Amino acid sequence: MTEFDLIARYFTRAPQQAVLGVGDDCALINPSANMQLAISSDMLVEGRHFFSDVSPYALGHKALAVNLSDLAACGATPVAFTLALALPSIDEAWLLAFSSGLWALADAHGCELIGGDTTQGPLTICITVFGEVPRGRALLRSGARAGDDIYVSGTLGDARLALDALQGQIELPPDLLAQARLRLEQPSPRVALGTALRGIATSAIDISDGLAGDLGHLLKASKVGATVDTGVTMNLIASRAHIHWSKALFGPQKQLQMVLSGGDDYELAFTAPPAASGAVHAAAASSQTRVTRIGMIDNEPGLRLVDAQGQRIPVSFTSFDHFAR
Amino acid sequence: MTEFDLIARYFTRAPQQAVLGVGDDCALINPSANMQLAISSDMLVEGRHFFSDVSPYALGHKALAVNLSDLAACGATPVAFTLALALPSIDEAWLLAFSSGLWALADAHGCELIGGDTTQGPLTICITVFGEVPRGRALLRSGARAGDDIYVSGTLGDARLALDALQGQIELPPDLLAQARLRLEQPSPRVALGTALRGIATSAIDISDGLAGDLGHLLKASKVGATVDTGVTMNLIASRAHIHWSKALFGPQKQLQMVLSGGDDYELAFTAPPAASGAVHAAAASSQTRVTRIGMIDNEPGLRLVDAQGQRIPVSFTSFDHFAR
Repeated sequence: MTEFDLIARYFTRAPQQAVLGVGDDCALINPSANMQLAISSDMLVEGRHFFSDVSPYALGHKALAVNLSDLAACGATPVAFTLALALPSIDEAWLLAFSSGLWALADAHGCELIGGDTTQGPLTICITVFGEVPRGRALLRSGARAGDDIYVSGTLGDARLALDALQGQIELPPDLLAQARLRLEQPSPRVALGTALRGIATSAIDISDGLAGDLGHLLKASKVGATVDTGVTMNLIASRAHIHWSKALFGPQKQLQMVLSGGDDYELAFTAPPAASGAVHAAAASSQTRVTRIGMIDNEPGLRLVDAQGQRIPVSFTSFDHFAR
Repeated sequence: MTEFDLIARYFTRAPQQAVLGVGDDCALINPSANMQLAISSDMLVEGRHFFSDVSPYALGHKALAVNLSDLAACGATPVAFTLALALPSIDEAWLLAFSSGLWALADAHGCELIGGDTTQGPLTICITVFGEVPRGRALLRSGARAGDDIYVSGTLGDARLALDALQGQIELPPDLLAQARLRLEQPSPRVALGTALRGIATSAIDISDGLAGDLGHLLKASKVGATVDTGVTMNLIASRAHIHWSKALFGPQKQLQMVLSGGDDYELAFTAPPAASGAVHAAAASSQTRVTRIGMIDNEPGLRLVDAQGQRIPVSFTSFDHFAR
């Protein structure tokens, strides 16, 4: 099988919305009137972002999911994506499963594969995704204002638990491992929530590097600070495995750290003024996504965590850094 | 230095045309009214597309050049690009040189870096480039018609000669090597020619995988065939090194093969009706790009080469395939 056969067999369909898809020097799309194009690019490297024995179906899903999560954080509606793929060799069973996982998620979001590149090399996946958002209505990191409420979607911590379990550092009960592993390997990007929050949220960020670190990026971009109440919200934002199982194993301090900065949770953190609380919960309901208020934006720089008694918790978190471990 | 410092130091500038550049979950651009967006993505892998000891300045140039060449083939004007980069480690001297080469070419084409990703891994560069073209005026592979003239820009063969010399398979005189190496490592994408050919050329393709193979793709997409007169045109499209030096070394047959299918020449092949000959040459002059008529489109499927006497040359070429060697 040649490179051209491979592209034709696994990665080509007739263009839907696109004017021109896979097979020419460029793809062509017609941007809609009065819309801005939101663009994000992520690269996944074997051994760094996934294990070599990961299910190729799950990998196809995740490679697109991490990009859709960036669109979600901007409130953009997915339109199309390109795929650049370096493969050590042509393995047709692998390609069939990988492309199936990719197409399934792409179809679920009406996001069209319009082009890309295939080459030989260490297994590496680079997807660039395109979404549309009405002009001036994208959710940015920089819009949070003092007094805004801070919210988090879904639950946190499962992905890191699954990672530690798969690396043999901890042992998880089988049902919790299965659930946590699904969150690690096939995360659900919060696209419906992101678009529902347009005109409601003042800022938003994808917290794939951990809530603490990524919320820190949002605070810095917005030139504000925040106080997050972990006492009240811990049982609302922590995953089921963390609530029912991990505290006994790790102790509360380490558990807190794993939930707030474990990473690989493709959830959104966002802010909205208290007056918009009803609209936030309506957006959550319409997108069938759980949303929890975790704290408030203020003018004191930095992120402060307080416990149920309002006492400051002395803990520092840093965002995930690919070159730091 | 963290991943975030690295991005801030080497790959961030204030947005120019873009609404939002590096540093949020997505970049945002405002597509111009009545324009289509042309999109292309290429991945370069160390050891496959470049040697580990290549000049990082040249690598930064080439990584963007190969993408701009795809825009050129569609007649699109460059607008912006994303960069996803896997690095084995953080080497500041390398990053400074790489980013300098990248910025220099980007600035020369007014093409803005708007986002991307950085991670640790085997050295891999994935650029996705965006260009604009008036609706319905993109140059496609599928527009060639019987009777059209076939043209090639620039000269061919230097990149492959340099590659063979750098791999120790041949020895090139120093001045020819220097010139050939520049064409291999810092190709000039034919963006000005591509945009000048809008409304003139009936089809176009970037011949980075070799003229014979890529022209074959164009013929297939256009459902036509072609006869290329190598007797008359060989001395016009072959690079200086091939004209003055390689025939003695390789013999005419092998030389022909190297010129017509050596690969890595970022030139354009395109077609236009004979009545547009004046316009083609005006486009060549306005873009200061040499253009040579090499043959004619006909209705007999496939690509035929004839010599100066009109005799068919029995030679078959295949396009470069990343998995075939």
